[in-house]
Amino acid sequence: MQKIIDPKIDQRLINDGPIIGELSLSKVILVNNQYFPWLILVPKRENMCEIIDLEEEDQKKLFEEIIFISKTMKKIFSPDKLNIASLGNIVKQLHVHIIARYASDICWPNPVFGKDKTTYQQDKLDQLTKKMQKIIEIFPK
Amino acid sequence: MQKIIDPKIDQRLINDGPIIGELSLSKVILVNNQYFPWLILVPKRENMCEIIDLEEEDQKKLFEEIIFISKTMKKIFSPDKLNIASLGNIVKQLHVHIIARYASDICWPNPVFGKDKTTYQQDKLDQLTKKMQKIIEIFPK
Repeated sequence: MQKIIDPKIDQRLINDGPIIGELSLSKVILVNNQYFPWLILVPKRENMCEIIDLEEEDQKKLFEEIIFISKTMKKIFSPDKLNIASLGNIVKQLHVHIIARYASDICWPNPVFGKDKTTYQQDKLDQLTKKMQKIIEIFPK
Repeated sequence: MQKIIDPKIDQRLINDGPIIGELSLSKVILVNNQYFPWLILVPKRENMCEIIDLEEEDQKKLFEEIIFISKTMKKIFSPDKLNIASLGNIVKQLHVHIIARYASDICWPNPVFGKDKTTYQQDKLDQLTKKMQKIIEIFPK
């Protein structure tokens, strides 16, 4: 089994919002953008750019985590659509976006990537962080 | 095990390009856009919008197919980055984009969705279709 090496997270991902917890493979970032409930999974592996760069076992873990976070976001936010994407044209470090979208949101029906953001009020961010942390904690490590 | 029901594919996906083959779960569309090597996987299941709508066994199949197509595109096209996305804000029928991106391509580093396209010359499309079909055929059904 590959060792957890817990690499440094790219500063541009850190700038997206707080790291609110860890699953088995990935750290979880809550994107500080009040327009959309938006999480980013960052696998704790060094020098990975593509999902296929991960070892097979880690690929499976990542998919399980995508499913877990998708179900969680569906349940909590009741979005009209989930958007799941691994792009990484700008930030090379492997990361996966999971975003709750609404037909009423500011970008609908376009993708949300690279658009301007407006941060949450601090109390709203704290509240959302706590809510998500409770759920992340139940994921089997 | 859920029966293969082979639902009708949304006309807007059909308009994206020819169906060039089938994997175990998904039909494969080659997007007729000469700017990017771009495939779309469409699971042969009715009334599915999200990956989490699929039964667990089908979710696993879809992930295996995403991995297979990703490896194939990496090998054939040597892209600078693969973009993988399940969005579906416009076309609700579950589908997954796998796109080979280059730092020299017309949209880089932005996402390619919803941009104008220029179709392939017919002989180039035929050639690419045959090349991809040979690979799709080896996927275990």
